[in-house]
Amino acid sequence: MNSKQIEDEEQRRQWGARTWSTLAAVRSRSPLIQCITNFVSMDLVANTLLSAGASPAMLHSLEELPDFTPNVDALCINVGTLSAAWLPAMKFAAELALKAGKPWVLDPVAAGASKFRMMACLELMQLKPTVVRGNGSEIIALSKASTEFSMGVDSSHESTDAVEAAKSLAQTSGAIVAVSGAVDIVTDGKQVIGAHNGVAMMQKITATGCSVTALIAAFLAVDQLHALETTASALSIFGIAGEMGMETAKGPASLRTHLIDSLYGLDEAAVISRVKIASL
Amino acid sequence: MNSKQIEDEEQRRQWGARTWSTLAAVRSRSPLIQCITNFVSMDLVANTLLSAGASPAMLHSLEELPDFTPNVDALCINVGTLSAAWLPAMKFAAELALKAGKPWVLDPVAAGASKFRMMACLELMQLKPTVVRGNGSEIIALSKASTEFSMGVDSSHESTDAVEAAKSLAQTSGAIVAVSGAVDIVTDGKQVIGAHNGVAMMQKITATGCSVTALIAAFLAVDQLHALETTASALSIFGIAGEMGMETAKGPASLRTHLIDSLYGLDEAAVISRVKIASL
Amino acid sequence: MNSKQIEDEEQRRQWGARTWSTLAAVRSRSPLIQCITNFVSMDLVANTLLSAGASPAMLHSLEELPDFTPNVDALCINVGTLSAAWLPAMKFAAELALKAGKPWVLDPVAAGASKFRMMACLELMQLKPTVVRGNGSEIIALSKASTEFSMGVDSSHESTDAVEAAKSLAQTSGAIVAVSGAVDIVTDGKQVIGAHNGVAMMQKITATGCSVTALIAAFLAVDQLHALETTASALSIFGIAGEMGMETAKGPASLRTHLIDSLYGLDEAAVISRVKIASL
Repeated sequence: MNSKQIEDEEQRRQWGARTWSTLAAVRSRSPLIQCITNFVSMDLVANTLLSAGASPAMLHSLEELPDFTPNVDALCINVGTLSAAWLPAMKFAAELALKAGKPWVLDPVAAGASKFRMMACLELMQLKPTVVRGNGSEIIALSKASTEFSMGVDSSHESTDAVEAAKSLAQTSGAIVAVSGAVDIVTDGKQVIGAHNGVAMMQKITATGCSVTALIAAFLAVDQLHALETTASALSIFGIAGEMGMETAKGPASLRTHLIDSLYGLDEAAVISRVKIASL
Repeated sequence: MNSKQIEDEEQRRQWGARTWSTLAAVRSRSPLIQCITNFVSMDLVANTLLSAGASPAMLHSLEELPDFTPNVDALCINVGTLSAAWLPAMKFAAELALKAGKPWVLDPVAAGASKFRMMACLELMQLKPTVVRGNGSEIIALSKASTEFSMGVDSSHESTDAVEAAKSLAQTSGAIVAVSGAVDIVTDGKQVIGAHNGVAMMQKITATGCSVTALIAAFLAVDQLHALETTASALSIFGIAGEMGMETAKGPASLRTHLIDSLYGLDEAAVISRVKIASL
Repeated sequence: MNSKQIEDEEQRRQWGARTWSTLAAVRSRSPLIQCITNFVSMDLVANTLLSAGASPAMLHSLEELPDFTPNVDALCINVGTLSAAWLPAMKFAAELALKAGKPWVLDPVAAGASKFRMMACLELMQLKPTVVRGNGSEIIALSKASTEFSMGVDSSHESTDAVEAAKSLAQTSGAIVAVSGAVDIVTDGKQVIGAHNGVAMMQKITATGCSVTALIAAFLAVDQLHALETTASALSIFGIAGEMGMETAKGPASLRTHLIDSLYGLDEAAVISRVKIASL
């Protein structure tokens, strides 16, 4: 190995150690993660959090938030099945998390699908999410703060197209911005980190994006101070679970099962050897 | 083979080719299917559409419909967990689809369970669904436009009992009507087609009916002009996925997994050899 | 065997026979179980009921309840994703069930999470549920009728800590009270029965608690007169399905699949040999 290779290998090893350490902290501390998420994703989001060692709580009622939200370890808000009835609770929960100094994560599902939805996402951005995670289309739309149509919730932009949009959004909002794609990228507006784990078939399972957003919240709950790195670790862990699940999957439904089983069973050796995170 | 057998075989082969061609079109065009469906079914409906190659979008908010619905490729409305809060969006989305010339499909789950529900279904029927799919009890109840009680969402009538009800409903409404049962039937009020694929255990998995309704919407999105035939093809494809899933299933939950995996993996040879559609 | 062992063995055999008999009755009579349950649990609750042989119906709309609820065989109410919008329907459905003499079961998910939630649970308790099932934290919180915080939906109390709370709640409410834990316990305020089936990993699957509550409703639907014993049987059956599922599970997601498959396939020999219920 030349010195560049040695340096890369050392960096890779450090990312592996950091990622394992964060997952181990989630398992030992079992942080309580409140999720106000879309109906489609609730089952997989809850099971992802449980398999990672966290405690999910799907409370969304305005009446309960003042009692509950200040006591959670992190909050995840996902606008997938947004409605006028749910939006006030999303905003109120975000306010309470912000006030209590708890990390919170926004998943701007299909941000460009309607003016109403874009406005909701922009209002939520005002409440200073710690991290925003979406696919390329969503991050580009949100970054442009435009109302142009994204034709659905699946990405029609490669994440690489979205790097500049992500950096811009991070700079204007102060949030860490993550873009899922063939390579997941994470940025604070200056640094850009790539997480190279995962398999393409994960996009054929509904709510995998929502679930990794919730996993980011769980990781932030145990390491709020390094949101950039911790977000990359969460994306990598979910991708590794997908890679290991793919080894025995026969299609998207068995991949879903094996991904969750793998996430539950991940050990240090697998994490260390598989994490592929690198500065871009 | 005698001439009748040769004719039957030729007809079967044509149905296989047509069905494969429609599935291939869904895979290549990935139509955007808006689903306003019940909470129980959202996960399986989304995964069914993804596995078939379509793009699901579960938007249901009145505020978003004018921006979003005119741009979808098809709409699926399912009244399973109907409420006064959701009904206006169901009707508005159907209106928008009708106005935009997009196909839309109605699943009148448990149509006879209450006067409120039957009235909702009758109002939705006024908005000219392209296809209505239900089980025997639901289609009979809807056809009678009566308020008599159906004691639940599972069929207590064999679909063969419902053929006359389906024909009558198709004639009065102008919709294609499909009735799921041991043999699925589809009618435009004159022709009646039978799709003989599927396995009984599929009824032990929640939301399989809802999911095949969504699959019909995806098929219509790529072939709106032959709604009768396309509906039969969608029913057959879902049934074939169930048959293939059943080969390794150990019960309803593994059947659900294998069904989705099989739907994702279906190839031309399997479709051609397994499609069992015939005029009745 | 000494006489104590012979007596124990005889008691165990009787519990096995009674439990099998109740499951067989569910399968043959396929009772209609209305579930007003949380969004996270709907899929697994419906599939649990179907696999046990019952018919689930997830109707929750106020407008439909007068037509529908008096005709169901049992009602299950679960406050997991409680909201001001859903609470009136929960109360009205419980009233209708009570008036019609139908058994109904309450799952007070995260009862202590907020004052609003606790008040809702206390109001529902006034409507005389046949059975209340929760984890230790929930039953203790509900029993104390206090607003002290339970930090989430997972139990932080062992069920044995909750036995006195359960007995007290049963005495003051007149309901059978069940507490899930390493050993599930059931009490009418005097007798305490323990159900020793199940595996720890079931707690890593979301909605297993909600699902066993729904299964209790299905069991009560066919044997309302022995609510104490029938509840113990339902807890044991679900635990046995988990034990059998665990034999081939590789993690929580495959356990979920195998649990449902096992519940569907349970035969008399497995039930008789595995039921571990005993008076405490």
